[in-house]
Amino acid sequence: MGSEERNTERQHGRDYHDPPPAPLLDMGELKQWSFYRASIAEFIATFLFLFFAVSTVVNYKEPNYTDQCSRVGYLGIAWAYGGMIFVLVYCTSGISGGHLNPAVTFAMLVARKMSLIRAAAYMVAQCLGATLGVLFVFAFMYADEQQNSDGVVNVVSRNYSKGAGLGVEFVGTFVLVYTVFSATDPKRNARDSHVPVLAPLPIGFAVFVVHLATIPITGTGINPARSLATNLIYRGTAEAMDDLWIFWVGPFLGALAAAVYHKYILRAGAVKTLKSFRALGSFGSHPPV
Amino acid sequence: MGSEERNTERQHGRDYHDPPPAPLLDMGELKQWSFYRASIAEFIATFLFLFFAVSTVVNYKEPNYTDQCSRVGYLGIAWAYGGMIFVLVYCTSGISGGHLNPAVTFAMLVARKMSLIRAAAYMVAQCLGATLGVLFVFAFMYADEQQNSDGVVNVVSRNYSKGAGLGVEFVGTFVLVYTVFSATDPKRNARDSHVPVLAPLPIGFAVFVVHLATIPITGTGINPARSLATNLIYRGTAEAMDDLWIFWVGPFLGALAAAVYHKYILRAGAVKTLKSFRALGSFGSHPPV
Amino acid sequence: MGSEERNTERQHGRDYHDPPPAPLLDMGELKQWSFYRASIAEFIATFLFLFFAVSTVVNYKEPNYTDQCSRVGYLGIAWAYGGMIFVLVYCTSGISGGHLNPAVTFAMLVARKMSLIRAAAYMVAQCLGATLGVLFVFAFMYADEQQNSDGVVNVVSRNYSKGAGLGVEFVGTFVLVYTVFSATDPKRNARDSHVPVLAPLPIGFAVFVVHLATIPITGTGINPARSLATNLIYRGTAEAMDDLWIFWVGPFLGALAAAVYHKYILRAGAVKTLKSFRALGSFGSHPPV
Amino acid sequence: MGSEERNTERQHGRDYHDPPPAPLLDMGELKQWSFYRASIAEFIATFLFLFFAVSTVVNYKEPNYTDQCSRVGYLGIAWAYGGMIFVLVYCTSGISGGHLNPAVTFAMLVARKMSLIRAAAYMVAQCLGATLGVLFVFAFMYADEQQNSDGVVNVVSRNYSKGAGLGVEFVGTFVLVYTVFSATDPKRNARDSHVPVLAPLPIGFAVFVVHLATIPITGTGINPARSLATNLIYRGTAEAMDDLWIFWVGPFLGALAAAVYHKYILRAGAVKTLKSFRALGSFGSHPPV
Repeated sequence: MGSEERNTERQHGRDYHDPPPAPLLDMGELKQWSFYRASIAEFIATFLFLFFAVSTVVNYKEPNYTDQCSRVGYLGIAWAYGGMIFVLVYCTSGISGGHLNPAVTFAMLVARKMSLIRAAAYMVAQCLGATLGVLFVFAFMYADEQQNSDGVVNVVSRNYSKGAGLGVEFVGTFVLVYTVFSATDPKRNARDSHVPVLAPLPIGFAVFVVHLATIPITGTGINPARSLATNLIYRGTAEAMDDLWIFWVGPFLGALAAAVYHKYILRAGAVKTLKSFRALGSFGSHPPV
Repeated sequence: MGSEERNTERQHGRDYHDPPPAPLLDMGELKQWSFYRASIAEFIATFLFLFFAVSTVVNYKEPNYTDQCSRVGYLGIAWAYGGMIFVLVYCTSGISGGHLNPAVTFAMLVARKMSLIRAAAYMVAQCLGATLGVLFVFAFMYADEQQNSDGVVNVVSRNYSKGAGLGVEFVGTFVLVYTVFSATDPKRNARDSHVPVLAPLPIGFAVFVVHLATIPITGTGINPARSLATNLIYRGTAEAMDDLWIFWVGPFLGALAAAVYHKYILRAGAVKTLKSFRALGSFGSHPPV
Repeated sequence: MGSEERNTERQHGRDYHDPPPAPLLDMGELKQWSFYRASIAEFIATFLFLFFAVSTVVNYKEPNYTDQCSRVGYLGIAWAYGGMIFVLVYCTSGISGGHLNPAVTFAMLVARKMSLIRAAAYMVAQCLGATLGVLFVFAFMYADEQQNSDGVVNVVSRNYSKGAGLGVEFVGTFVLVYTVFSATDPKRNARDSHVPVLAPLPIGFAVFVVHLATIPITGTGINPARSLATNLIYRGTAEAMDDLWIFWVGPFLGALAAAVYHKYILRAGAVKTLKSFRALGSFGSHPPV
Repeated sequence: MGSEERNTERQHGRDYHDPPPAPLLDMGELKQWSFYRASIAEFIATFLFLFFAVSTVVNYKEPNYTDQCSRVGYLGIAWAYGGMIFVLVYCTSGISGGHLNPAVTFAMLVARKMSLIRAAAYMVAQCLGATLGVLFVFAFMYADEQQNSDGVVNVVSRNYSKGAGLGVEFVGTFVLVYTVFSATDPKRNARDSHVPVLAPLPIGFAVFVVHLATIPITGTGINPARSLATNLIYRGTAEAMDDLWIFWVGPFLGALAAAVYHKYILRAGAVKTLKSFRALGSFGSHPPV
């Protein structure tokens, strides 16, 4: 946390390598087992994610209020979502990249880090896995526990406007995807030893903190597959399907904003597009890297 | 979390080395101190695991309900199990592999990562250590606290079917053993720097989250030695011994499923068994690694 | 944790390199994109920090007390502040150093790790970002939730003296900045592998624990930008603006003390200033490194 | 977690280096600044440890029970002790080894990892730092909050026998010191990448889990300096000074047991002392390393 950034910037040579943009359509992928394996890994991981997270939610408080304090509460729900993302990103990052979230996949597509065809396959796998995970909980769980099902669905709390709900979904997904870009940036990987080594942990913590802050507002989506699955199966209130667009539009816009922020501000793309400005000499002789 | 996986797959050379399958019977092990040392380490670690976890459970709420909110509740129980697994896997992984769980040992045997004789020795050590740990708590603890003993045993909650209990034990052990395989995969170790370095932490978090989700359903087993020890000594309800089979069959099946998933899907074994398919040319010229 | 420190100290050669002191005024910085980029990163990160932390605070308990135990309470608030600092230091450390706090920036200036002009830009960015983050929460949130706003502002609890409040702000910031110096010490980085790799995590945990200890006393500042923003916008009590000086003076003094402690005690500067003492031979032939 | 241990054991060459035993008396240390610096670092860190931990305890519940659920409870206390140990071991391990605990220092002395004179200096520094930390809390804090002072002192709960208290202090310190030995073992450091990198984290988690399990039994000591300081200053009950011996004898015996376990079982010392046994050929041709 000091001046080292400034020093490395003054070096003209690069110590990292940005891979070329992924092609939008790469039909060759369809002939590779690794493509199917990655899609299966996304399916299984999203299934596990929703199974354990929603199991935690349906039991987060006593149905009959006799022993309220022993149950895990909102804090336990936040840990279930965040902790599971930490574990599953750790497990799947080397197979599929460990997205588990259509908004993350969308951001990687926008950043040209994966092909359109792979992004589509991931999103389908994520939505199917999430739906199956929620369905298992719905089928397995004791009926009386289902009274906590109002905590399962994503819906804007009656005390907040739709705009506020959209806003927190936008900012919540922004911080998640910003963390994902920071964790997978080749430049950061080459320079800061904590970046590649810790990667899954801050991603899980981002999910954890966003839940702490926004469970009382929207139930916390920041993952369109999760919102689709829970609202499709639980339908806690009539608004569950009505509000579903908020949990697709908010996260996708937040993911887009994080991709733009990372590419054009943090990775100095802004300056690269302003070559005429630099040509005037106002940024000195050391080109930003 | 991007396209790097695809790039490395296109390299024909391998940057990792899979050790050969362990022999099923390796009588030479019996002559090595490291064999006995590993078994002792499993015994001591499983003793410590159960001693602290069950001590937490018997005190998780006030016996007389005067100050419910100060006690640690289910969240504290989940941290005790998960936190202790993190610490003890950290301490013992270099000595015994840090299993502390017959289901994990079974998975390693199935994956041919250890001999049958070593697996048997570990399982005996784990069951003895767990039983001794629970016995110490039972003997030491204040009698009135023992009223929380219904939280110590593993039994399917009266509101759930036996099938639901078996199911959550299966899925809970699956995610734990899947994490263990991910943490110890030579291919992942060679490529993703977070995999070998963080290893004990996501294993502990997997145990933590499974407890958050399933304490209200089964008390959370996912470890046959723990279930045997608690149900043998505490016998909280008449069902404790009746349900014990669920906490052996569920975890062993879950561990087997995770071993199969890792070997035949994630490590591309599925394709290797389909040589005729690949011979037809449908998977292109780049063999999956 | 043993004798290795002693051994390395006996080596005359150095295995690390202290960068030269940063110039106080470096007008060349103003021509570099990296200077603006770093300031933007501080602005965005401080915005995100306050947005999620204050969102957590306004919802930390039920407005109408019907289901007190489900909400996240003080423990959730502490996790929100500490967890967010972990995530955001992870994300921004390679861009700006990841300060997010004028007291940290002040310590880095005092330690000559950044120029005055950069420090000023960071502090302005942090105060603007924090204010905007709090403003968004204030504007978005359900009015009735605002009754928790007494937890948002930093003010000395009526049961404590101003001196006690100043004292805990001093010590709280001391431990935070001490951790930051430990994490960024080139000597420690070269010798202890956990230092550079874990860096953002203990910084986040320091913030977490200081909140656990001092929320009931001052609401926990240890960050002048956070105190300015919340007290300006929420004005929970008439004392909010009156006490604000405590949350600037305490943290800046604590940061200064940590900088002095690190430079003159831990990095052996004390001895270096006592050359006459060493010239007398009382410290032997092995010069402290 | 598999067979790699077995493979490395078969190599005859060593990939690690055990430093020679530290001399019991090394008067030369007294001439080195690093000796005084380390003692100062232990003093400051133990002061910070107790200041934040005890501040958390005196505020862990509402004095007047109006809003019980918002306070941090036993879980927050456990996090304060464990989190602070994580942070401070991270900060001081490269300066003093990061003991902060006479029982840890005693174990390092027994293992011949530090001189008697250094061990004595550390213990004095720890006891002084702890006492000053508790004194500051006692002096600063609101008098009415002090009613939580029964949670500050270490005393065996009236429902447990002195033997049970001694037992949990023994086992609690055993697991802490076992983790410290695992984290600082040169053999483990050379082979398992997670060992040196994570080191302070499992040490902090060990302290955290022991608190979860034993706060209701003894208030959790496992650190003689902490027990001395709290019981000297708070004297919550008449038993506080009477029971103090338990919190010195239990931890020292637990630390001794962990040192013996690590040296004679885990590091194969047991076999080395049985050379006649090995001379008979019963351990084969591959000497344990």
